[in-house]
Amino acid sequence: MKRIYMDHSATTAVDPLVMDAMLPYFTERFGNASSLHSFGQEAAEALSDSRSMVAESIGAREEEIIFTSGGTESDNIALQGVLSREAGKRQHIITSVIEHPAVLNTCSFLESAGHEVTYVPVNSEGIVDLGEVERAVRDNTVLISIMHANNEIGTIQPVKEIAGIAKENDLYLHTDAVQSVGKIPVDVNGLGVDMLSISSHKIHGPKGIGALYVREGITLDPVIFGGGHERGLRPGTENIPGIVGLAKAVSLARERLGADSAHMGKLRDSLISNVFGTISDVRLNGHPKQRLPNNANFSFKHVEGESLLMMLDMAGIAVSTGSACSSRSLHSSHVLTSIGLEPDYIHGSVRVSLGRENTMDEVDHLTGVLQETVAKLRQISSPGQC
Amino acid sequence: MKRIYMDHSATTAVDPLVMDAMLPYFTERFGNASSLHSFGQEAAEALSDSRSMVAESIGAREEEIIFTSGGTESDNIALQGVLSREAGKRQHIITSVIEHPAVLNTCSFLESAGHEVTYVPVNSEGIVDLGEVERAVRDNTVLISIMHANNEIGTIQPVKEIAGIAKENDLYLHTDAVQSVGKIPVDVNGLGVDMLSISSHKIHGPKGIGALYVREGITLDPVIFGGGHERGLRPGTENIPGIVGLAKAVSLARERLGADSAHMGKLRDSLISNVFGTISDVRLNGHPKQRLPNNANFSFKHVEGESLLMMLDMAGIAVSTGSACSSRSLHSSHVLTSIGLEPDYIHGSVRVSLGRENTMDEVDHLTGVLQETVAKLRQISSPGQC
Repeated sequence: MKRIYMDHSATTAVDPLVMDAMLPYFTERFGNASSLHSFGQEAAEALSDSRSMVAESIGAREEEIIFTSGGTESDNIALQGVLSREAGKRQHIITSVIEHPAVLNTCSFLESAGHEVTYVPVNSEGIVDLGEVERAVRDNTVLISIMHANNEIGTIQPVKEIAGIAKENDLYLHTDAVQSVGKIPVDVNGLGVDMLSISSHKIHGPKGIGALYVREGITLDPVIFGGGHERGLRPGTENIPGIVGLAKAVSLARERLGADSAHMGKLRDSLISNVFGTISDVRLNGHPKQRLPNNANFSFKHVEGESLLMMLDMAGIAVSTGSACSSRSLHSSHVLTSIGLEPDYIHGSVRVSLGRENTMDEVDHLTGVLQETVAKLRQISSPGQC
Repeated sequence: MKRIYMDHSATTAVDPLVMDAMLPYFTERFGNASSLHSFGQEAAEALSDSRSMVAESIGAREEEIIFTSGGTESDNIALQGVLSREAGKRQHIITSVIEHPAVLNTCSFLESAGHEVTYVPVNSEGIVDLGEVERAVRDNTVLISIMHANNEIGTIQPVKEIAGIAKENDLYLHTDAVQSVGKIPVDVNGLGVDMLSISSHKIHGPKGIGALYVREGITLDPVIFGGGHERGLRPGTENIPGIVGLAKAVSLARERLGADSAHMGKLRDSLISNVFGTISDVRLNGHPKQRLPNNANFSFKHVEGESLLMMLDMAGIAVSTGSACSSRSLHSSHVLTSIGLEPDYIHGSVRVSLGRENTMDEVDHLTGVLQETVAKLRQISSPGQC
């Protein structure tokens, strides 16, 4: 059975072009970028070229890009880095209730260390309320961290408008763009952000590598300490194959943005209209328009999402319940709770996240299997049975 | 010109067997280990198998292995993790003056955060004085962190004896084994350590991945926060290809230990005897016997190490001055300063670090080039000239 992968917000396969770019750096050009000899020089050149590629793809400058081990570490360096730097001065952060755990749990840690955090609510469509952001600003606020697009329901936040609030109040603005790169335009100046987190493995690059954009003039404290790599902000021998792969992936994502997002958007719209046309008692979670072109998060009344996922998996289709990051825990999604989804629906949620390689045939197949499976599960759970 | 790589303490090429093990996980078995579907299950199995392999290779149990982004992060989690956990209680660390910057700079950070650190000296052969370690213990000491083998001069520290001191005083013992794995036996119970750092790229595995052994029963605080991966100690989507590569590399290192260390030791002994037989005014830094089989760190009187390195590089031979980690800075090596190397010698140091693929012919070639180059450089720098 050919399997169909529709869980691209969890992770993606490495693109063959990315793989080709990386391969020589494992075995031939394997030097340590800090070494002065020719092996080291090759690595240092790859590092510099990759930094340029990543910078160019998001409208930044080479010296504004820090390579990290992934999106989680990027978020941590941004938040911890600012708060540590401002220790004893401004110590209040504003974030949203639907951030990724990398931001939410860093905020919890910062609260336990004596900092203050305001968690701004979202409306029923999952959009952060700008008025609430504005009202949350205090004298000691230093940072706003609001994600560009949500990993579960795909809503796109009004980051540009939040940047206006940040600028007006002389605050730093960080955004987690892990889900938005490759799906919608991501330009640091267009968005007006000071820091922006990128992950490689969500955009057909390798796992274990990411980047943090830090606007020129902003100094962060590091989270880990060592040999002074990445301007002292992220020590440790640079992961050159990973960095080369990330650069190629970001660059391809930018190049293919128009075609990819049009393709995924068409599939998603078709999926949504098919599902609503064939299955009753279903909700589309998130905003109908202001959402990633590859995301459809459905809730089916009186259906257990995990059972639905398992049955789809047996039919060879991979989707997720909530986000992969929390799929092994049994808590309800904090995102679905935050948008006020009704109890009858909250446990029956699946996230379909499309990728550039998915086809209309696959979407049609998914619709058929979904219709059949939801009906079966509703029959089992129906009180009239037994 | 075929280049000769003799800088294996800086980094190594990925072994073809490691590459073969990793490859499927980039493009076919690319799932997120947290996903519940079949793609996720494949990743979760690879994660669990890899954890077993790493554990087995160092005599540990699967649940005692945490995957990190590399040696630097492993060291940071060990040191920061213990000190944060013991906050307000025991807050004194004992370490040595010749640790890697990942330990030394983490200690500086901890000092700036109000903790206390004693830096134990080493003797002229680079060995930590056990009496000094013992005398450094205070009522509020919580942790000893002493590296297994030094990255610059290759000295092997008496970790087992230090474990006796730690046990007697109820202290945690961490060792950075980044340089020792694959060169000498590394067994956590044999050494008696509570925490041990491993890096993949020093042993023919990929860059950007490492592990931290944490003895059962020890709880550390995390350094970064997020989705709860690695028992909450190291969040972020697991780098499965990297982890599979690390596991294969550690496992091969263990398998080949006898043959590899005999081979490298033979080459090293021949190199040392050739150098001393053909070049005058030379020192071997570190201990004559208690050193890694692949390390020879020489100092040539009245020679500039960087010029020597550059001329060797032009001759196609890659070695390093001091350690790669600090090679772009102009400071003298803190290790060579700590062993009290005479001023006439301290700037004329090169580290030759051999690998399993080096040959006796290459060593003979190096000796010839060294002899010629040192003579040339001494002629240039000789006060009698011009």
